[in-house]
Amino acid sequence: MPRPFNFSAGPAALPEEVLQQAASDMLDWQGCGMGVMEMSHRGKEFISIAMQAEADLRELLSIPPEFKVLFMQGGAIAENAILPMNLSRGGRADYVVTGSWSQKSAKEARKYCEVHLAADNSASQHTTLPAAASWRLSPQTAYVHVCSNETIHGVEMHDLPDLRALGSDAPLVIDCSSHIASRPIDWSRVGLAYGGAQKNIGPAGLTLVIVREDLLGHALPITPTAFDYKVVAEADSMYNTPPTYAMYMAGLVFQWIKRQVEVTAQGQVRGLAAIEARNVAKAARLYDYIDTSGFYANRVEVSARSRMNIPFFLNDEQHNDAFLTGAKERGLLQLKGHKSVGGMRASIYNAMPMAGVEALVTYMKDFAQRHG
Amino acid sequence: MPRPFNFSAGPAALPEEVLQQAASDMLDWQGCGMGVMEMSHRGKEFISIAMQAEADLRELLSIPPEFKVLFMQGGAIAENAILPMNLSRGGRADYVVTGSWSQKSAKEARKYCEVHLAADNSASQHTTLPAAASWRLSPQTAYVHVCSNETIHGVEMHDLPDLRALGSDAPLVIDCSSHIASRPIDWSRVGLAYGGAQKNIGPAGLTLVIVREDLLGHALPITPTAFDYKVVAEADSMYNTPPTYAMYMAGLVFQWIKRQVEVTAQGQVRGLAAIEARNVAKAARLYDYIDTSGFYANRVEVSARSRMNIPFFLNDEQHNDAFLTGAKERGLLQLKGHKSVGGMRASIYNAMPMAGVEALVTYMKDFAQRHG
Repeated sequence: MPRPFNFSAGPAALPEEVLQQAASDMLDWQGCGMGVMEMSHRGKEFISIAMQAEADLRELLSIPPEFKVLFMQGGAIAENAILPMNLSRGGRADYVVTGSWSQKSAKEARKYCEVHLAADNSASQHTTLPAAASWRLSPQTAYVHVCSNETIHGVEMHDLPDLRALGSDAPLVIDCSSHIASRPIDWSRVGLAYGGAQKNIGPAGLTLVIVREDLLGHALPITPTAFDYKVVAEADSMYNTPPTYAMYMAGLVFQWIKRQVEVTAQGQVRGLAAIEARNVAKAARLYDYIDTSGFYANRVEVSARSRMNIPFFLNDEQHNDAFLTGAKERGLLQLKGHKSVGGMRASIYNAMPMAGVEALVTYMKDFAQRHG
Repeated sequence: MPRPFNFSAGPAALPEEVLQQAASDMLDWQGCGMGVMEMSHRGKEFISIAMQAEADLRELLSIPPEFKVLFMQGGAIAENAILPMNLSRGGRADYVVTGSWSQKSAKEARKYCEVHLAADNSASQHTTLPAAASWRLSPQTAYVHVCSNETIHGVEMHDLPDLRALGSDAPLVIDCSSHIASRPIDWSRVGLAYGGAQKNIGPAGLTLVIVREDLLGHALPITPTAFDYKVVAEADSMYNTPPTYAMYMAGLVFQWIKRQVEVTAQGQVRGLAAIEARNVAKAARLYDYIDTSGFYANRVEVSARSRMNIPFFLNDEQHNDAFLTGAKERGLLQLKGHKSVGGMRASIYNAMPMAGVEALVTYMKDFAQRHG
């Protein structure tokens, strides 16, 4: 029996090949006589796993050498505190609110610094993206924070703002938890990127922080040493015991991305380009159907729609339960929308194949015909 | 070929049965069509895993109902900051220094409160345990912190101090990272117990905090919300996405402990009692051999010796490299001592069978004969 298609917003589906590799390595990694969970983080076996994972991530995302890659813990929610502890210097930080996650980030930062809301799309129920040119940036701000993909509201920044062009020399900080490794990142516009691993990268319990070196070294005195970016960077993420198994899984996912090949109108592409092409095609397929269905609706402004998280509503919401029950019967799992938004949500991260989106569209058509 | 015996201090060996179960569940947990890593932490499948893990831990350790069990992240090193953030109220806390780990805890706590060293065994190079009656407890202290098993120095508290008998009504806080679930805990003497999972419980990246309810609700305003014990307790450890896979693995380990049976002089015992009996026997076997060998030495005061971490030295240290090379050839892995202590260290946590200790002793005898 084929595996069901799992549309969970996170922790989310992982590529089958990756899970198979993990199962096969469980008791003995490459003949060393230990499973990966059982290795000292300071032994040569695990050091090689960690170094390979970092090297592969750097290659996939073209991370420039002046950025450090940190493997941390606590997810993006802990990072919402750890970030201002490390970067705010107790001064002011600008936040752009585009949905639940950036709102949560701004709220947490108030514990550590003065938070200025440079923009806020609450009036549109988080279905739009305020143009960068309209942001009210502070003249003196430690950083400007955005959530580049809002998992709950399905809003994605397809271009990162160029803060210098807007007259600011503050570093841009992006919470890219739910679309990291789904597309390239323009590092010339970014000072720090962070994200929980549990959407596109691996198991929950691993946080990636990718930070420009010049931003290190300004942690507030109350910062826990284990969360001081400079300490973590200098210890190659081993000041404390890192989440070793999650790092190994992330490494397997990076290798899987590197193996991907996709044929596009521009010819054959590989690695992250292949993943991105597939993500564009998957999202287009689903939005196109929703928009023309007359039965379902996505309320996000077209230019702001996420490729990863696609909330949608049945025009007649009394069919919601039947929709979910029928979906599960067909092996289409975890489609219920977030409780704060309602309706449905299809999260179609890297590990979701086009076949999963096709299966969903086929089911949605069939359901619409039967209930329309 | 049998698996090698892995004496790593942590991340450490896991029971073979547990790893086999994890490998077998990897792509599909109990027919639900998802691997455990792929489940939403809010779905009924994962909730059942988390609830079972907590129930089994409560049963094994006889945790009273007035204690909350929190599944957190960051390991004991992060907890060294999170603890005083939550419990110190910015006042004074007493610390008992018995080795590297308690020393590290005391140092980190100074960021958040006034730290008073109630006792310190540094003069003995951390090979003794200062008697509780000799501790200089503060009349007003938020808590008294001890590390009940020092992983690096091999010093273990076989009886937790009874602070009330010493005239203090402060809660006792124990860092029990490296011997949790190896023996019972006398909860009547404890206010809070914490530990990283990567020794006796599961993969790195999971921290257990077991805390008496009346200690919740006093976090300093600078405490990250994700690390506020009260918030974590009220959200059943799901304020942020918990390290789901590590929790699942811990659950498998708890089930494994429950299945253990051991025959002792007092008859057949099960579960934690069986594990403890085995740990006592394993440690006795190794210490007895070391003490009578004339070739190896353990420097820790007999009454303070750890059942879990047994540092030892070759009387002639020029044989150290040969000892380690020969051990590895016989499938006895990760015996090198911590760099701050030198020599060797055998960590013989719950997952190490008596056969592993016997194999080590056999090798040590043989090596001593050849080099004595």
